[in-house]
Amino acid sequence: MSEQTVQIKTAGKILQSPCGPIIHGLEDVLIKSTSISDIDGEKGILWYRGYRIEDLARHSTYEEVAYLILYGKLPNKKELEDFTNRLKTYRDLNSATIEIIKNLSKAHPMFAIESAVAAEGAFDEDNLKLAEALKVGRYKAEEKELAYRVAEKLIAKMPTIVAYHYRFSRGLDIIRPRRDLSHAANFLYMMFGKDPDPLATKGIELYLILHADHEVPASTFTAHVVASTLSDMYSAVAAAVAALKGPLHGGANEMAVRGYLEIGDPSKAKEVVEAATKPGGPKLMGVGHRVYKAYDPRAKIFKEFSREYVTKFGDPKKIFAVASAIEQEILNHPYFQQRRLFPNVDFWSGIAFYYMGIPYEYFTPIFAVSRVVGWVAHILEYWENNRIFRPRACYVGPHDLQYIPIEQR
Amino acid sequence: MSEQTVQIKTAGKILQSPCGPIIHGLEDVLIKSTSISDIDGEKGILWYRGYRIEDLARHSTYEEVAYLILYGKLPNKKELEDFTNRLKTYRDLNSATIEIIKNLSKAHPMFAIESAVAAEGAFDEDNLKLAEALKVGRYKAEEKELAYRVAEKLIAKMPTIVAYHYRFSRGLDIIRPRRDLSHAANFLYMMFGKDPDPLATKGIELYLILHADHEVPASTFTAHVVASTLSDMYSAVAAAVAALKGPLHGGANEMAVRGYLEIGDPSKAKEVVEAATKPGGPKLMGVGHRVYKAYDPRAKIFKEFSREYVTKFGDPKKIFAVASAIEQEILNHPYFQQRRLFPNVDFWSGIAFYYMGIPYEYFTPIFAVSRVVGWVAHILEYWENNRIFRPRACYVGPHDLQYIPIEQR
Ligand SMILES: CC(C)(COP(=O)(O)OP(=O)(O)OC[C@H]1O[C@@H](n2cnc3c(N)ncnc32)[C@H](O)[C@@H]1OP(=O)(O)O)[C@@H](O)C(=O)NCCC(=O)NCCS
Ligand SMILES: CC(C)(COP(=O)(O)OP(=O)(O)OC[C@H]1O[C@@H](n2cnc3c(N)ncnc32)[C@H](O)[C@@H]1OP(=O)(O)O)[C@@H](O)C(=O)NCCC(=O)NCCS
Repeated sequence: MSEQTVQIKTAGKILQSPCGPIIHGLEDVLIKSTSISDIDGEKGILWYRGYRIEDLARHSTYEEVAYLILYGKLPNKKELEDFTNRLKTYRDLNSATIEIIKNLSKAHPMFAIESAVAAEGAFDEDNLKLAEALKVGRYKAEEKELAYRVAEKLIAKMPTIVAYHYRFSRGLDIIRPRRDLSHAANFLYMMFGKDPDPLATKGIELYLILHADHEVPASTFTAHVVASTLSDMYSAVAAAVAALKGPLHGGANEMAVRGYLEIGDPSKAKEVVEAATKPGGPKLMGVGHRVYKAYDPRAKIFKEFSREYVTKFGDPKKIFAVASAIEQEILNHPYFQQRRLFPNVDFWSGIAFYYMGIPYEYFTPIFAVSRVVGWVAHILEYWENNRIFRPRACYVGPHDLQYIPIEQR
Repeated sequence: MSEQTVQIKTAGKILQSPCGPIIHGLEDVLIKSTSISDIDGEKGILWYRGYRIEDLARHSTYEEVAYLILYGKLPNKKELEDFTNRLKTYRDLNSATIEIIKNLSKAHPMFAIESAVAAEGAFDEDNLKLAEALKVGRYKAEEKELAYRVAEKLIAKMPTIVAYHYRFSRGLDIIRPRRDLSHAANFLYMMFGKDPDPLATKGIELYLILHADHEVPASTFTAHVVASTLSDMYSAVAAAVAALKGPLHGGANEMAVRGYLEIGDPSKAKEVVEAATKPGGPKLMGVGHRVYKAYDPRAKIFKEFSREYVTKFGDPKKIFAVASAIEQEILNHPYFQQRRLFPNVDFWSGIAFYYMGIPYEYFTPIFAVSRVVGWVAHILEYWENNRIFRPRACYVGPHDLQYIPIEQR
């Protein structure tokens, strides 16, 4: 119980309080060591388990990347096959969960996902067995095996939850998962009910690969805090979904595409960008990043993919053309250069979704379909050396006020 | 963007990392200033908005305490009446949410609450309107008014969610809220369908008052992290429920009562307490606290209430007698004296619940029924000066590994 003083470096904003300094939003405060992903914000590099995302985007599949993130190494053929097969067997949902998604057919999909993930957790016997063990503080080899199985189930089920909600929301029958299809292709199949176009599948695959992990943003941090109480993994993931839903976190790709549609024509880019540089002016969506002070490496890959997609399918709403023109203006504008603001992943990632016919509200859900692997991998990592998160707030109010009977107030 | 070094005092465990020190579980790390509640762990004092909980427990009602916590002052007669009436009108749930709770009748109630809270949020138009405003960064007078209304709704609806789940779980019809009853009495009425016994109502009232806030434990912290993304208040509360569910947080009162039942007789107290002092021995449930190094002030009040309850209704299972004997042993034992371990709130609070016929699984849900006011008050406070929580993890793995094709692995 002896007190120590710790030195913490931060580029964040410091709030003063009578109890000491407060690092607002815990910016740069370390919560753990990790070997899952790393970001070099200065150079614009992102690694999963030591592999550059450019290599993974070029050569890998979501299943392989998920295995890498979860198990720490690239799988061999047999390992990948087994993993992929397990995911396929875990895809379907409990009938009560399906009913719940149906009950929420009129709700925004993010609420439905929160609700469905928590519900599914109540029926997954591995999850319940693990929760029972955690209740008595047991987390040994057997429990870890359970935990990894639960993690795989969450990865496998997330696309189903999203696709089922989409179907119900349109008054359509749900389409059961198909075991002959990959994670990405099966997702599109469950959404639209036909053999997906290969380029669309590639787009979803890329998106899923590039969003799989990103160290500890608010959603992943939420997953840690919930899991640190030894609540179960589904509950931690449901809570992470709740955080991802926030417009400061998962919502920018939708806003970016809406912006392009509103702008409507590349000739207006200059004017729009200029307006964003004025004090109090509207921020450009999909531009700037808390960590990247260079071109977001994921954005580069999506830009190329979007180009490929509109080259094949056309750009009838001119959203790719508008985005390209805006980018040109940004890169040449001293305001953005001085502040080191570049297009981020959300600047480009919604364009192909839009043309695939995916409604805006499903952009953030697809983010969850990908990021779930990051969430569960980080929970598993934190449980290796768990401690409940219990920060403090500095009390600045009065003490020992006298209770006055209501008649005298 | 210039870096600063901040000095942070902590009694917590420090983990070393190449990026700097990590305060495990963020123990003693400040996340904000607050005027909601304060704890003096050394002296064993808890204040809500400057009022000692002993005064509130003696003179106040849950409605008054909820008003105090939410609005920062004790209400006058008119304010309390209006507030109470608003809560009464907000009690019922959307029919889709009721269906969801029914779908989850076989689930542990905490999963059902997570799910139902998220669902209800999708239907509350004030919540959706507020979320839309937050999406474009708007949080002015009008939005704050909405936010307080949403907060009140969450407080009003939580008992209904819990009671409906209890009814469905027993295959019973749900019982609609009754407007002539107080928050506590109505809860018992919706649970058991009869005019509640006054002493039982008093017990629930006390429990609700004494759990209403406790600064920033993991659940309240979770609510902050989710709300900091500007996700909506229901989602933040659903996530807080997910954290409260964890056995390191909300689950100890259930474990304590189960322990007493298992022990069965006060004569065994000595032996049980002795066993808990042995290295690696089982911890005594409801004993010890991260913050209180004195007798938990809430525990004192519950002890007296439990005595009153068993004096009136008897102690047929001897759980009060067992608890009293254990307490006696603890207070006299050097192991507990040296470590300053005392009965905490959970040591006593489950006893009356047990005799009221409330099943164990509903102990933590009733905690949520109370604490929801703390969660929403803290969210409202944080939104006054919001910043997204985005800590860091220190990457300790390799970089730039070469991607080897799967055939060669
Ligand atoms: C992502 C974001 C929140 C990062 O924020 P941050 O690192 O805290 O940076 P700040 O908000 O402090 O911005 C630094 C400066 O750049 C400006 N700026 C940041 N993003 C901007 C944008 N998208 N358009 C115009 N100006 C922007 C700020 O106004 C500020 O200018 P000032 O120094 O004159 O006040 C911010 O860039 C943003 O809001 N971007 C748009 C939303 C978005 O795309 N989010 C998804 C991120 S994946
Ligand atoms: C609440 C609790 C987690 C606080 O933990 P903490 O402040 O981190 O304290 P520690 O776990 O470091 O305990 C300090 C010492 O007291 C001992 N101790 C703490 N609680 C004990 C208990 N309930 N029974 C027996 N020994 C206990 C620890 O073994 C440790 O002994 P050591 O110094 O010989 O290793 C802990 O007291 C506990 O687990 N209590 C039982 C569960 C409970 O009632 N939780 C609800 C809290 S509201």
